[in-house]
Amino acid sequence: MKIEAMLGIQSPVIQAPMAGGTTTPELVSAVTNAGGLGSIGAGYMPPEALAKAIEQTRALTTGPFAVNLFIPESYRVDDEAINRANEQMAPYRRELNIELPAPPVDYARDFDAQLDVIIDARIPVFSFTFGRLTADQMGRLKQADIRVVGTATTIEEALVLEGDGVDAIVAQGADAGGHRGTFLAPVEQSMIGTFSLVPQMADAVSVPVIASGGIMDARGVRAALALGAQGVQMGSAFLVCEESGAKSAHKAALVSRRYPDTALTRAFSGKAARGLRNRYIDDMVSTQDNLPDYPVQNAWTKDIRAAAAAADQADLMSLWAGQAFRLARSESVAELMARLTDGWQ
Amino acid sequence: MKIEAMLGIQSPVIQAPMAGGTTTPELVSAVTNAGGLGSIGAGYMPPEALAKAIEQTRALTTGPFAVNLFIPESYRVDDEAINRANEQMAPYRRELNIELPAPPVDYARDFDAQLDVIIDARIPVFSFTFGRLTADQMGRLKQADIRVVGTATTIEEALVLEGDGVDAIVAQGADAGGHRGTFLAPVEQSMIGTFSLVPQMADAVSVPVIASGGIMDARGVRAALALGAQGVQMGSAFLVCEESGAKSAHKAALVSRRYPDTALTRAFSGKAARGLRNRYIDDMVSTQDNLPDYPVQNAWTKDIRAAAAAADQADLMSLWAGQAFRLARSESVAELMARLTDGWQ
Repeated sequence: MKIEAMLGIQSPVIQAPMAGGTTTPELVSAVTNAGGLGSIGAGYMPPEALAKAIEQTRALTTGPFAVNLFIPESYRVDDEAINRANEQMAPYRRELNIELPAPPVDYARDFDAQLDVIIDARIPVFSFTFGRLTADQMGRLKQADIRVVGTATTIEEALVLEGDGVDAIVAQGADAGGHRGTFLAPVEQSMIGTFSLVPQMADAVSVPVIASGGIMDARGVRAALALGAQGVQMGSAFLVCEESGAKSAHKAALVSRRYPDTALTRAFSGKAARGLRNRYIDDMVSTQDNLPDYPVQNAWTKDIRAAAAAADQADLMSLWAGQAFRLARSESVAELMARLTDGWQ
Repeated sequence: MKIEAMLGIQSPVIQAPMAGGTTTPELVSAVTNAGGLGSIGAGYMPPEALAKAIEQTRALTTGPFAVNLFIPESYRVDDEAINRANEQMAPYRRELNIELPAPPVDYARDFDAQLDVIIDARIPVFSFTFGRLTADQMGRLKQADIRVVGTATTIEEALVLEGDGVDAIVAQGADAGGHRGTFLAPVEQSMIGTFSLVPQMADAVSVPVIASGGIMDARGVRAALALGAQGVQMGSAFLVCEESGAKSAHKAALVSRRYPDTALTRAFSGKAARGLRNRYIDDMVSTQDNLPDYPVQNAWTKDIRAAAAAADQADLMSLWAGQAFRLARSESVAELMARLTDGWQ
């Protein structure tokens, strides 16, 4: 089945489900209303917040949109590692005039409670990253007639997801910004460029492949389709749009051209993610592999990231960005969508 | 000027100048005779050997081909590092039944003597990697009416090469196999995927951009052109062709599907390069940054690589490969070129 028909959209353009406040109802609905597929990045959302976000988005569009969750993974709460990390981060808290916060009540969301919200709301498309669904979870989604989209960073991961019964697979190339979806081999062995990943994955599986990583304009959309993808998923390009809820310092950094490159870092969350290489990433290079596990480290940097954002201190924020960030433009979703589909449909 | 006219070719397909015996006169001439641009990878060739290779290639084609050289770089001959590396590699020599060789007479070729051969022979296209030409070298090439093609792995490198007066730039994406052409920032900060690098470079410079890294078939050619490249340079796809002089164990490894991934390693030559991840690369992961400089380490692994190739011991060879190696096919150059240009011209 063509992916447009499968997802009920006009243009095979998916707004990437960026977690952490970027995917406002305004952003998601604007993408859907322009003929693409908006996505709520709900990985960090408590179930009640997710239900509210769905309701608010539905108030702005009658079209389809996706909700994305993070597959839970095992992690250790290692007090020694937490203390060591907090010692290393103490200068940032001093610089930002904040105190060491109390430990969080919990580190991870209740995945099944989040999933219940999605199934109850009959969201048309559910996407996930960081792993695999259980057979039971997959069965419940299928029974609710929800399309299921997994995320793979290697051919082996794509084959596993296809075997699990997903309807489509996002091929997350090494070019992509934000967290790596890798769940089989180590991340360092799963950094395959979008250009190489897409055709090999399209050859390996029979479900539609959605290219992601480095796609910013109509050239990228055309190239992804030429490589064998049936659609594209784009993060950075939507992150800088007017409707996005990304922090203003984050948006400004992406279009500023002041950053020469991006880097993969575990220093913000404990999980490898790509962002503009700033002072925090550089400072933490040598210790990033000894930090607490994801999502423990993520919880312990939350106050720093929030205070830095409030102070427009981009050098201490997680400035997630794909490798083609130089092509980012400040504009509305409608303008971006018009550019994307210009001349290729 | 369109790149076909600039280089005197029919199809904008350049066979990458793989050094070390791969670019036989048969391979180079077959590419040129099929309408593309063959390239002699002459980085390691003494001037006399290069002159002979040019003569032999010209006996097989009247069309244009390129010669590629390595820009010389400073290096230290650190006896302590050499001894340490040889100690670490002693088990491989025992396994291959070879003795520690005598130190090489010299580590690097005389670049200007190599360049003299190219200028004397009025080769139509000169390409280079690992750095920049001097103004004098550039002037001599221009005066001889030779087209000059540089290699860039970042936007900054492309701008520098354009300022130096190159006629075209190969955008070497992080997907590419073999040695990184990086010469400004550290390699780790210059690993931009082909998908992201090409459009940003095409926007930044006004000379034609030639995409390289992950291009293996007609899908890749179409995608590269869609991203804004005027042509493509392909290594792995030509390396496995019948006419290529690559070691049979190298070709067999590339099409075997036995290797799950590639890795970037300094362990073979002292310079970062991408190849199929084999035992040697895995063994050397932790020490690769303390090895002798390029090209010193390259000279000290030559006997190991040669003996391993003679014994079909792929796990101790440098199996250079791009990240899309699963698309490699054993076939003739004519068959590959026909596949590449099928349906897009």
